[in-house]
Amino acid sequence: MNALTPLGMVSDLPSENQTNTAVREAPLGQDNSDERTDYFVRRDGMTFAGTHLLVDIWGANNLDDPALIDSALREAAIVAGATILHSHFHHFTPNGGVSGVVVLAESHISIHTWPERNYAAIDLFMCGACDPHLSIPVLRRAFAPERVDVNEQRRGRVA
Amino acid sequence: MNALTPLGMVSDLPSENQTNTAVREAPLGQDNSDERTDYFVRRDGMTFAGTHLLVDIWGANNLDDPALIDSALREAAIVAGATILHSHFHHFTPNGGVSGVVVLAESHISIHTWPERNYAAIDLFMCGACDPHLSIPVLRRAFAPERVDVNEQRRGRVA
Repeated sequence: MNALTPLGMVSDLPSENQTNTAVREAPLGQDNSDERTDYFVRRDGMTFAGTHLLVDIWGANNLDDPALIDSALREAAIVAGATILHSHFHHFTPNGGVSGVVVLAESHISIHTWPERNYAAIDLFMCGACDPHLSIPVLRRAFAPERVDVNEQRRGRVA
Repeated sequence: MNALTPLGMVSDLPSENQTNTAVREAPLGQDNSDERTDYFVRRDGMTFAGTHLLVDIWGANNLDDPALIDSALREAAIVAGATILHSHFHHFTPNGGVSGVVVLAESHISIHTWPERNYAAIDLFMCGACDPHLSIPVLRRAFAPERVDVNEQRRGRVA
């Protein structure tokens, strides 16, 4: 077993959050306990799989606190309307950086922090009815960054 | 507990792959069992945290096979020189799509598949000495896509 394993924090109790506000692919009347919520969407005359925000934050705090980061990313997922399936965070020593992911039914949120630089790279990739832009204020509150760079990419464009 | 939990596949036996070919931040002689390998790099006159490839594949196969996907992404990490810390894959029903992540010491690889569209969104985000471009041939062999769109983003540019 890798010596790093004991240092990982495994958070694998998915919430039961599920939003059901938009059109779904599964026909009505069928068992939708595992209904897919990451269907393709049409917006601004474009059809695509999902919105992927590449968020770089600078001059940020709390980047070496795995519990706070776990909580912030879960809240970020919930406010965007996403469904949490699994999360895992790794805490590095000696610099205290954290790397982790939250797997969503609608894709994922990830974070990689460099506390020594007060910098973190965050990804908010969400499909279907979710809106990752709603997650940005949550990140601002959790990390109080001096600067937030948001790079929006649309994944899986078909038209 | 979420009804989706039993459907998740948890693969959490990290490999012991570790490449040690580049300059490190930890001083020589210290215990480097958790030495950070995701240091900032300087390339093409630019200093940044890491290279993030957003890879969309079309006309692809094996997008509903979690075991194959797990194996392919692990191989993709290894050939790029990355260190695997954790992985988790979720298999959706009824469409068979797979969502998952491999957490690396040097960031992460993620995948979200839409077998009904023969499409998948893959992310290869790697820092330090890793080269995510080396992962692309592994993905081509695993999924045999008709088309591969690679969008390269440099995260955390400081200069």
